[in-house]
Amino acid sequence: MTAKKTDFSFMDHFFKPRSVVIIGASNTHGNLGAPMCHSLKRLGYQGDIFVVNRKGETVHDCPGFSSLADIPVDVDLAVILAPASVTSSIMRQCGEKKIASVIIETAGFSEVGGEGQRLQEEMDIEARKYHIRYIGPNCIGSMDAHSRFTSFFGVRPGTFDELFDCPGKISVITQSGGVGTLILRSLMTDVVGFSKIISIGNKADIDESDMLQYLIQDPLTNVICMYLENISNGKKMMRAAAGSSKPVLIYKAGATKQGAHAAASHTAGMSNNDDVFDAACRQAGMIRLQSVTELYSMPKIFVTMPLLQGKSIVVLTNTGAFGTIFTDLLVHAGLVPVTLSANMQLVVKKAGMVFNAANPIDLGPGISGDPFLDIFKLLLGSGEVDGFVLAINIWQQSIVDALISMAALCQEYGKPAAIYTPNAIERVLHIRKNYKIPAFETPEEAVRSLVVSHRFFMYQLKKKR
Amino acid sequence: MTAKKTDFSFMDHFFKPRSVVIIGASNTHGNLGAPMCHSLKRLGYQGDIFVVNRKGETVHDCPGFSSLADIPVDVDLAVILAPASVTSSIMRQCGEKKIASVIIETAGFSEVGGEGQRLQEEMDIEARKYHIRYIGPNCIGSMDAHSRFTSFFGVRPGTFDELFDCPGKISVITQSGGVGTLILRSLMTDVVGFSKIISIGNKADIDESDMLQYLIQDPLTNVICMYLENISNGKKMMRAAAGSSKPVLIYKAGATKQGAHAAASHTAGMSNNDDVFDAACRQAGMIRLQSVTELYSMPKIFVTMPLLQGKSIVVLTNTGAFGTIFTDLLVHAGLVPVTLSANMQLVVKKAGMVFNAANPIDLGPGISGDPFLDIFKLLLGSGEVDGFVLAINIWQQSIVDALISMAALCQEYGKPAAIYTPNAIERVLHIRKNYKIPAFETPEEAVRSLVVSHRFFMYQLKKKR
Repeated sequence: MTAKKTDFSFMDHFFKPRSVVIIGASNTHGNLGAPMCHSLKRLGYQGDIFVVNRKGETVHDCPGFSSLADIPVDVDLAVILAPASVTSSIMRQCGEKKIASVIIETAGFSEVGGEGQRLQEEMDIEARKYHIRYIGPNCIGSMDAHSRFTSFFGVRPGTFDELFDCPGKISVITQSGGVGTLILRSLMTDVVGFSKIISIGNKADIDESDMLQYLIQDPLTNVICMYLENISNGKKMMRAAAGSSKPVLIYKAGATKQGAHAAASHTAGMSNNDDVFDAACRQAGMIRLQSVTELYSMPKIFVTMPLLQGKSIVVLTNTGAFGTIFTDLLVHAGLVPVTLSANMQLVVKKAGMVFNAANPIDLGPGISGDPFLDIFKLLLGSGEVDGFVLAINIWQQSIVDALISMAALCQEYGKPAAIYTPNAIERVLHIRKNYKIPAFETPEEAVRSLVVSHRFFMYQLKKKR
Repeated sequence: MTAKKTDFSFMDHFFKPRSVVIIGASNTHGNLGAPMCHSLKRLGYQGDIFVVNRKGETVHDCPGFSSLADIPVDVDLAVILAPASVTSSIMRQCGEKKIASVIIETAGFSEVGGEGQRLQEEMDIEARKYHIRYIGPNCIGSMDAHSRFTSFFGVRPGTFDELFDCPGKISVITQSGGVGTLILRSLMTDVVGFSKIISIGNKADIDESDMLQYLIQDPLTNVICMYLENISNGKKMMRAAAGSSKPVLIYKAGATKQGAHAAASHTAGMSNNDDVFDAACRQAGMIRLQSVTELYSMPKIFVTMPLLQGKSIVVLTNTGAFGTIFTDLLVHAGLVPVTLSANMQLVVKKAGMVFNAANPIDLGPGISGDPFLDIFKLLLGSGEVDGFVLAINIWQQSIVDALISMAALCQEYGKPAAIYTPNAIERVLHIRKNYKIPAFETPEEAVRSLVVSHRFFMYQLKKKR
């Protein structure tokens, strides 16, 4: 099963429009569109930015008009913040202005039922009549770190400056603005940056599968993360995912009957059968995540490390207890804390002072310096090990330096290491941010990263066959 | 099954000796005892501190002697840092000096086998001959935040000042120095302080059960955390735990065959059957933890919140997705995301603007202020709810204030709330540290805290019957 190549290039409008109009932005106190204008100006976005409001007033240097029709140039994208009751009329005006792409951030549609449902249907009729493709309603917009575009509402200008200054290759599709924001904020204390993020809300037109196909073809995306509360069309999604050569990581809320019921009031979705979804993920080669936190903790294993091609793992530690703890975790995760050959143990012992040369290998406090890196190279070069857990307590700068060298060696030898430093969380954040060491926050996260890396490797192998 | 009251008051020597001698502390560069002297002076420890070294030199103002016999006063505790080969001779000198309590931090005993095993046996003969009770060998010592005592080695003076300045009621028994240090450092970014911590190493004399009994009777301990790699005597431990009216939280590494094998080289223990251990925990009313991180994340639910007495939970959120996510997690954890009665839903709706008044209750962005606290009080006062998840995104100061008020209301009404703020980790640490809000770092941790709270409540109920 492979996806047919469809032209999704119109979706570029949601991330890098040559011109955008923000409908409902004004200088009224508390207006939600004004910070959006402010952010775009602050980021130095290169496209034209217009606003439409009752008075036709200019907002943060973005020229204002009282009607869409008055804008003197063609517009790629309209962002609608106006009340639900006027949205279908605005959609018609967009059509008349020949705007082909719209993001409707307004809430109060099918997720509230009754009248909202009717408003959504009305709006949809207008959209179809004018061949408009739209995102939403009930979403918080899109961002692109490379083009420096944002249509997020409710974000104080400057909040995500760091992320825009270091664009990355992680893209995010989310059915919840709150989860999207959590992911972005969490990447700010991590080693990997985002590329594109889009909140799809009620997904009345463009759904997660359309967006997935677009991102699979996007040259600036290497890893795709999805937060979903329901699946619009399971088969469509499976077709899209099956064609992906990029990791697709999904966390789906509403896994239980009660959770699905809660989700329905949030983003207007039908509940889905969780077992069916689980099987579908495996069949289409998508990685199902176990926690919403994995949406931001897991991507780094794909960006900073080679894939795990086998199950034989060695634990290197300078804190004996974590050798034991990780051995348990590896076994429980279905990985193999491999026993090194007698010969390899001898070689390791010769290379440097070790407390224990079997596996886990306890290097004691003297874990830095050349002898230690020599041991790591020997293990990388041996045919006995597919990947590593580095459970290394950072108690002096030389250990930070050693970890930086080790991460580079992993790339050189094509074998991954999951790094966990048994230090308090503040220290972990410090070394991750300041030294770009891809450290995980818990032992469980570290082992899980090896599992998802290996799972993706196996999916790819299957797809190639 | 109840523990008989044994006199463990001699164990006070390990935490607040009237006088202590550090054997092996000197001014030689790299000496491990000198920082210990420095720390004790820095903390202003009130007892006498002596050192013994070859030259009889004073270390950091602690009077030095070349022989134990020369110390002119009685000594409560000896801390031994000298090499394993001389330990049994030192033990004899301790006996002659009538020192009844000793901590042996030196490694190289039974955990290395052969010659080490022999040295441990020799030392043990001397200890028994002189009725000396000892901790270790192969441990990193003890600390007491209330008495401001430390015998930890390898710790830079000043590292734990914050913890000594805010003593708490969490006590820790650990078979690994690395895990002990991780717990202490992690409590530094949390809302609860420690009382006593002891690293028991090879536990050749005093074992985890002795220490557990001591801490159960200790008025300055309310929660007991244990990190173990093996159990010295299962029945003894069960007897001790069964008599506890305090939560006893245990993480045991070496749960798998491979992990147990790794543990043996670390702390010289026999492997134990994991299923048997699991059953023993339930029978004796100990809470078995699922991750080493729970040793520092879980205690706060006991210190800052009333116990969870039933399973009916309401989720309050200002970020719809987390209503769904927590509903799933509660169901998976065996708790009940209770459906509020129609009447209660009406009452909630009347009290303030809510997006969804069933459960999960979505309060939208306006989650602060009086109407919101009114809703919380109504729910606390109703007979319909046993506890809460507060999944509240902090995006302005008034929400911080609301959370502080809510934590106080939980105490007033005797019902707990597990707090999770879907903000990036840095913000979570900030509000926890600066506003003493007992926030968990992941949704899973928050739900787990309710599970352990309820489990402890049920254990206590059973013990009382």
